[in-house]
Amino acid sequence: MYIEELAESIRNFEGVTRKKPISDIVSIFETVRPEYRDAIVDFGDDAAVIDIGTDDVILFAADAIWGKIVNKSPWWTGYTSVVVNVNDISAMGGRPLAMVNVMSSSDHDSTEEVMRGIRDGIKKFGVPMVGGHMHPDTPYNSLAVSIIGIAKKDCVIRSDTAKPGDIVIAAYDMDGRVGKNSPYSWDTTSFKEPSIVRDRFMVMQEIGEKKLATAGKDISNPGTIGTLGMLCEVSRVGASVDLRNIPRPDNVDFEQWLKIYPATGYVLTAKEENAAECIEVFEKCGIVAAVIGKIEETRKLDIYDDDGRATVFDFSKDKITGIEI
Amino acid sequence: MYIEELAESIRNFEGVTRKKPISDIVSIFETVRPEYRDAIVDFGDDAAVIDIGTDDVILFAADAIWGKIVNKSPWWTGYTSVVVNVNDISAMGGRPLAMVNVMSSSDHDSTEEVMRGIRDGIKKFGVPMVGGHMHPDTPYNSLAVSIIGIAKKDCVIRSDTAKPGDIVIAAYDMDGRVGKNSPYSWDTTSFKEPSIVRDRFMVMQEIGEKKLATAGKDISNPGTIGTLGMLCEVSRVGASVDLRNIPRPDNVDFEQWLKIYPATGYVLTAKEENAAECIEVFEKCGIVAAVIGKIEETRKLDIYDDDGRATVFDFSKDKITGIEI
Repeated sequence: MYIEELAESIRNFEGVTRKKPISDIVSIFETVRPEYRDAIVDFGDDAAVIDIGTDDVILFAADAIWGKIVNKSPWWTGYTSVVVNVNDISAMGGRPLAMVNVMSSSDHDSTEEVMRGIRDGIKKFGVPMVGGHMHPDTPYNSLAVSIIGIAKKDCVIRSDTAKPGDIVIAAYDMDGRVGKNSPYSWDTTSFKEPSIVRDRFMVMQEIGEKKLATAGKDISNPGTIGTLGMLCEVSRVGASVDLRNIPRPDNVDFEQWLKIYPATGYVLTAKEENAAECIEVFEKCGIVAAVIGKIEETRKLDIYDDDGRATVFDFSKDKITGIEI
Repeated sequence: MYIEELAESIRNFEGVTRKKPISDIVSIFETVRPEYRDAIVDFGDDAAVIDIGTDDVILFAADAIWGKIVNKSPWWTGYTSVVVNVNDISAMGGRPLAMVNVMSSSDHDSTEEVMRGIRDGIKKFGVPMVGGHMHPDTPYNSLAVSIIGIAKKDCVIRSDTAKPGDIVIAAYDMDGRVGKNSPYSWDTTSFKEPSIVRDRFMVMQEIGEKKLATAGKDISNPGTIGTLGMLCEVSRVGASVDLRNIPRPDNVDFEQWLKIYPATGYVLTAKEENAAECIEVFEKCGIVAAVIGKIEETRKLDIYDDDGRATVFDFSKDKITGIEI
């Protein structure tokens, strides 16, 4: 039965399974939790939320690019490092302020290409790279980028706050194309004007400030269902998703689409009465959004369509990251 | 003549020469400078300074550990990543808030050891690790850590603000020992009580708030003279250093000491009338400090002692990072 196979394929997708080692790692920090005075949210969300004693909070995240891509396209590595970091802040309803990077490089040419990619990302998103560290002599190329942003304390969109009965919304910039470096990347920005890109990336800030979402997350390497799974896991809920309602581009295989990192793509949960306004905010700036499901009390994430129903994650036994916020 | 050899040896020290590629890299960002609206200081200082529209500023830095050390001692890699990052914030007179990391690892055991090192660093310094990204399947081990801190806007200690006529102070925690992993590391923290370590690391905050320094920087891989060189380079000044006045431990070769990363060590510049009070603040918390020289209008960094005088850097032709703040 196709839907069972699809559920299994998503569950075993590398973008999902690569998240598994995180909980082992995070558990090592358990004994030092008393030192976490200023952290409102730490591991398990797109960005950490740091209290600075004012009405604003600082958002803080780090991200890096899969090694496969670093060697294939240094320019794209630099450019997309900006995209994923800006996403970590914007997904939480924040405004990005600045980035820093650590570059390790075996050769000068790759470094220059990576930096040109970063420069073009800065030009596109308007978020500066303000410092970092350089290893000029490593036997490999790698790039780690970290970002800070700012948000009003009571407008932050977290991952761990979805409640049973909330509806699930998926939102994508459909004006994109499958990336050259991976069948699971979707480029929505490199060919567009900065003003359009910035409007679309900042949409979550409006949703946060209007308090239209109960939770949300940017769709990243685990894809649409995998990312919703991470949201459910930390919210300690389940979900049922009607696959027929997921917006999709005409020219991309549906299973591939579900696994894609859509660059400008979010899963959100909202109270039913706010769904229409939430979708309106997305559509006003050119993002396609739709109600795709519901948050459930059972700790299972199910997908269904005309042919049947299957469980992708059963959090009574499955873990994606295993993190408890 | 020994002093000439010493000057050459410092100029060609790997800790100094590894800084050279930075200006090439930074120059790539020149065309996107108009996007740097919120950045008061970007590249070229220990941390970037970000305006958030209040009396406080956010400090933001990234650092990483030499690959040689990562493979030799994963625990030390994790631990010292906290030390160097906390230093980037404390050297600017800030209070560290939180860190994030990107870990790339080829094996689970190394990752766990690195994370245990980070945990012990958190326990020592009281600064939490709040998030990050994990590559569980790279052919190498590497760790990049980024940190944020907070400081009063008018109390930040920058590198680029030294003026001719200022005196130069060097300050070290002399209660330390040469690290196991490199002849150029000096461990001042792993064997001490957290309360003592935290007092000594926070000394620069008091100096910043009392406005006792005109500029300052934590002594890092380039060593005492190399770090003073970086400060002079971005301040567009020179300096003359009386080697006889540099505090030194009994049991370490002097040339080695000058190249050591002293963990808790700073070079500062100050107005002559504030020198005594500045040294007093250091000594109150157990750090040894002394006036070691003077900032000069000529763009040369000279060292001298009883035997003679030699130029280590002539910034009319030499570059360390080449960055202009």
